[in-house]
Amino acid sequence: MAKVCVVLSGCGVFDGSEIHEAVLTMYFLDKYGAELLIAAPNIEQMHVVNHLTGEVTEGESRNVLVESARIARGNIRDLKDVKVDDFDALIFPGGFGAAKNLTTFAVDGVDCNIDLEVKRIVKETVEAKKPLAAICIAPVLIAKALEGTGIKSKITIGTDENVASAIKNLGATHISCPVKEAVVDEENKIITTPAYMLGQRISEVAEGIEKTVKQLLDFIK
Amino acid sequence: MAKVCVVLSGCGVFDGSEIHEAVLTMYFLDKYGAELLIAAPNIEQMHVVNHLTGEVTEGESRNVLVESARIARGNIRDLKDVKVDDFDALIFPGGFGAAKNLTTFAVDGVDCNIDLEVKRIVKETVEAKKPLAAICIAPVLIAKALEGTGIKSKITIGTDENVASAIKNLGATHISCPVKEAVVDEENKIITTPAYMLGQRISEVAEGIEKTVKQLLDFIK
Repeated sequence: MAKVCVVLSGCGVFDGSEIHEAVLTMYFLDKYGAELLIAAPNIEQMHVVNHLTGEVTEGESRNVLVESARIARGNIRDLKDVKVDDFDALIFPGGFGAAKNLTTFAVDGVDCNIDLEVKRIVKETVEAKKPLAAICIAPVLIAKALEGTGIKSKITIGTDENVASAIKNLGATHISCPVKEAVVDEENKIITTPAYMLGQRISEVAEGIEKTVKQLLDFIK
Repeated sequence: MAKVCVVLSGCGVFDGSEIHEAVLTMYFLDKYGAELLIAAPNIEQMHVVNHLTGEVTEGESRNVLVESARIARGNIRDLKDVKVDDFDALIFPGGFGAAKNLTTFAVDGVDCNIDLEVKRIVKETVEAKKPLAAICIAPVLIAKALEGTGIKSKITIGTDENVASAIKNLGATHISCPVKEAVVDEENKIITTPAYMLGQRISEVAEGIEKTVKQLLDFIK
């Protein structure tokens, strides 16, 4: 049975993992026979957003690993304890957590910081020729992790021109893609799909994620 | 297009809505053509549970509507503003939130309190002969809401004998059911499925929820 590591970034689209994308990723992985290894970095969130009002909640802090555990039903590991030998493939759901907690892309663009454990696991996965997928805004962390390595990935975040431009500046190739499809970088075994970067409905987001998961598992065979 | 109201109880299996059940409910509703109306009561959670450790976090409080908004991506209404005329069917995902926030069943059993807006919307839905579904532990809130009304519902929470016994004491009939199936009360148009009361894998939980959603939409036709 293929084991797939799902890296979360909190619990909620505006300050953590996009919940629909995370759950649909887990659902399709399990449906198509993969074993799940859920992980998240043990770091503080950039901030906490009240998802009813959209406002930042001043004075409150939450931990990425602890909040991600909500989506994982408690069955989650600290990313620093996860090695590339522990899994056959790696996948990052989206949500602002990928651009606020795993990287600081939402604030700093191409000059963003990237969590060192996230950078390590992405590089180790690509160097080990194991397949890797990212959803929604999370492909930016692949581009950032591989910046300066000489590995030129082909990825998508949908059609947003500003983010696409930043991805090019990080040394990756951006390919426009509709919500129900995925971009496959055959050479580097990297699959990306726009999800809620473009999606209006959960079922169309699911279609792109299902294709991404199937391709990820096909690369393992 | 059928409009279905999904009532949430927070965000996380141990103190709110079970996230997988909530997202899968929304996914199958959207996939089969329903429009979503997400709602939650504007009340404080019973407590906050650290989902990494399973321990109650002392001194922290969270609001059910605000946390539910994470699952709804901000598109959510206060349950008190939702009337039975606003939707064609009603559904409650599970999680301890149904037994800690929407009712106090987890602490008080058959003598539990039930949120007055939850009780109102369940009773109005059944009295209007509109279909109603509940997942996991949430069927106990149907039994509690209908206690003493003379309406004898047929529902399942899987096979747990203690909860089944409590349901009988509330005046409902309990029917044992495996995780991939659902119990259909044709007379009262009530559908229930055990989900994580029995499920070990997200894909088997999804199978029961998919059947529940399909039956709910069939009742609307």
